Amino acid sequence: MTESIAIQDMYDEPAAHCYGCGRLNDVGYQIKTRPDGETTLTEFVPEPFHTAYIDSTYGGLIASIIDCHSTGSAAIFAMRAEGSTIGSDPAPRFVTAHLEVDYLLPTPLAPIRLVGRATEIKDRKVIVETELWVDDRVTARGSAVLVRIGSE
Amino acid sequence: MTESIAIQDMYDEPAAHCYGCGRLNDVGYQIKTRPDGETTLTEFVPEPFHTAYIDSTYGGLIASIIDCHSTGSAAIFAMRAEGSTIGSDPAPRFVTAHLEVDYLLPTPLAPIRLVGRATEIKDRKVIVETELWVDDRVTARGSAVLVRIGSE
Repeated sequence: MTESIAIQDMYDEPAAHCYGCGRLNDVGYQIKTRPDGETTLTEFVPEPFHTAYIDSTYGGLIASIIDCHSTGSAAIFAMRAEGSTIGSDPAPRFVTAHLEVDYLLPTPLAPIRLVGRATEIKDRKVIVETELWVDDRVTARGSAVLVRIGSE
Repeated sequence: MTESIAIQDMYDEPAAHCYGCGRLNDVGYQIKTRPDGETTLTEFVPEPFHTAYIDSTYGGLIASIIDCHSTGSAAIFAMRAEGSTIGSDPAPRFVTAHLEVDYLLPTPLAPIRLVGRATEIKDRKVIVETELWVDDRVTARGSAVLVRIGSE
């Protein structure tokens, strides 16, 4: 059951106002990232006005949701590496030091799935690689370096 | 006088609906990028809700405005390289193939200046490096690979 809890719902209050993923930011995207087997999953539906060219999703939005998906994924992967339980143990917080996005194809203005994998977990640093899927195609890839903050 | 015209106001209609820089997207950011000597300049004021932690600007927004600033800057640099005049000649359109952002410091929730430089202009490809300034500090750096689209 705990596997269905979104990591962002476990962030402490100072981190809960993020425009991308804060549950207390009423006008933000409020993305939710959950463990999904060995990977992480974020699902997001762009609004009709989130356009680049009409019918494609704005690249800045893609970078934004990859960013928050990556910080959330880093927290999930770090907790797993430490044997912590998502939903009961405190969630660590990560910030983005470096973000890269490769735009491979136009992303249709349609439901998006972000799949995250950790390629490095070391001390306070986690690297998360992300595939952005629409239907059966990967239209963008992300890579982010996340750094743990706060006391622990 | 033509130097004060924003490149985004010269985009043809299909490109004018972008959430980041389209003049016809009523709910978007509508950023404006102008030539500024040898560089390009975009000024942007985040809204109070564009937060990461409270008092800092959301990293996804930073990536977004660097993205659109970079496509606009690529058009400006390409036009200059070709001897075209911004404001009277048609503006070429570029899309982002690759975007990188280094988050160097927390960016205060305050007016932002993006300064762009071209480091490569070759055939249909332009590389734009961006500094993000708040007051007298660079808090983030961007690098983008832009590819020209459309007929010319």
